[in-house]
Amino acid sequence: MTRFALTLEFDGTPFFGLQRQKDGPSVQQSVEEAAFRILGEDVRLHSAGRTDTGVHALAMRSHMDIAKDIAPFRLMEALNAHLRPDPIAVTHCEIVPEDWHARFACTGRSYVYRIANRRAPLTLEKDRLWQVGTPLDHEAMHRAAQALVGLHDFTTFRSVHCQSDSPVKTLDRLDVEREGEEVRIHAAARSFLHHQVRSMVGCLALVGMGRWREEQVAEALEAKDRQALGLNAPPHGLYFVEATYPDDA
Amino acid sequence: MTRFALTLEFDGTPFFGLQRQKDGPSVQQSVEEAAFRILGEDVRLHSAGRTDTGVHALAMRSHMDIAKDIAPFRLMEALNAHLRPDPIAVTHCEIVPEDWHARFACTGRSYVYRIANRRAPLTLEKDRLWQVGTPLDHEAMHRAAQALVGLHDFTTFRSVHCQSDSPVKTLDRLDVEREGEEVRIHAAARSFLHHQVRSMVGCLALVGMGRWREEQVAEALEAKDRQALGLNAPPHGLYFVEATYPDDA
Repeated sequence: MTRFALTLEFDGTPFFGLQRQKDGPSVQQSVEEAAFRILGEDVRLHSAGRTDTGVHALAMRSHMDIAKDIAPFRLMEALNAHLRPDPIAVTHCEIVPEDWHARFACTGRSYVYRIANRRAPLTLEKDRLWQVGTPLDHEAMHRAAQALVGLHDFTTFRSVHCQSDSPVKTLDRLDVEREGEEVRIHAAARSFLHHQVRSMVGCLALVGMGRWREEQVAEALEAKDRQALGLNAPPHGLYFVEATYPDDA
Repeated sequence: MTRFALTLEFDGTPFFGLQRQKDGPSVQQSVEEAAFRILGEDVRLHSAGRTDTGVHALAMRSHMDIAKDIAPFRLMEALNAHLRPDPIAVTHCEIVPEDWHARFACTGRSYVYRIANRRAPLTLEKDRLWQVGTPLDHEAMHRAAQALVGLHDFTTFRSVHCQSDSPVKTLDRLDVEREGEEVRIHAAARSFLHHQVRSMVGCLALVGMGRWREEQVAEALEAKDRQALGLNAPPHGLYFVEATYPDDA
């Protein structure tokens, strides 16, 4: 068996998330079925992260083991051909050592959350950003966000469906910036809880709208209680940006 | 009658262009019908430019005359509500003098053409860029483009359906730049011929791929013959960016 590392870009809109689901289409199912049609083998896709319905990926890292002899470039081209018309693209493919694991070897994950801060509905970027009509004070959002950076019990920002053993995580970065009418929140950590980014973004948006004092974000964290959550931001503004590994150049 | 200037953003994918067509949906028809539902008046939308099927707009400038008394902000909000689910948004609305005309007063129009220079199919930006798998030499494209800047007979770059009185136009700008895997071509002029931007981009792409020498762009221009055209780039990479007026601040 040869292990192939893949980089995947996808539009999450038509999928019930990255991982296989009993009740609807998933990125994993599409990629595994495309691989079966090419190779005649049952392959299993392992990925750095899980994503929810509607969440996008710019560069998800995944791997799969293949018995058949095939060059990485040919595999990538064949997958891209067989994935049509699903909005999934393989943007990179290479052979990696057998002990490289897309999920377990991953030591850093980053996301960006995009908000269109405007009253007009979205056209060209529909399903790509969360539209917020109320003017957002992005500087207040950035200041409030810093209370979440570091080692904390993120119970408040964790879905009831979260399968993580512990709610304690280290958040490395939570930066808020504005470019014109777009507000972007950048989050990075070794790993995240289920719904953590969307939950943090939701509370920061309340600060930006002036509905929460800046200090309420820290208070919500301290509460360690899901009931203290202000708002869970919708999935379609969220992008998995990249996964990093100790052996990355 | 009061004249309202509108700024429109739209995804051109589902439309047969901006202007009304006998045989399919258009941006103009959608906006006029939304206005009728709001005002109970037949209004006529006049716009700075025409766009083809699949061509997008970031900030088209238009106007319409309305008898009913309505505030610009209320008109904008009502249009945006009634335009759903069509991918058209009114991003600005104001009252202008009766002699202001979106088309005839316009003294500058600019477009951007976006190319995704990569082998992988597009996912999040499907129908938003032209995908070109062959590596493009954007510097050669930029050099070749400069032969088209200035006052020329653009017959080679003009659709057979063009309704302009003359093929002679002054092209103010044709710049090619790269940002990562995206190559962008910026074009500006007082006015353009039908298909001019897409025809120029098509020839520049041939230069970028190495299929045309840089000088062939100037030779095609000199030929003043549609048969000398190398390639008409597809519509979905083209965006109307802005229209300028002498009285703009």
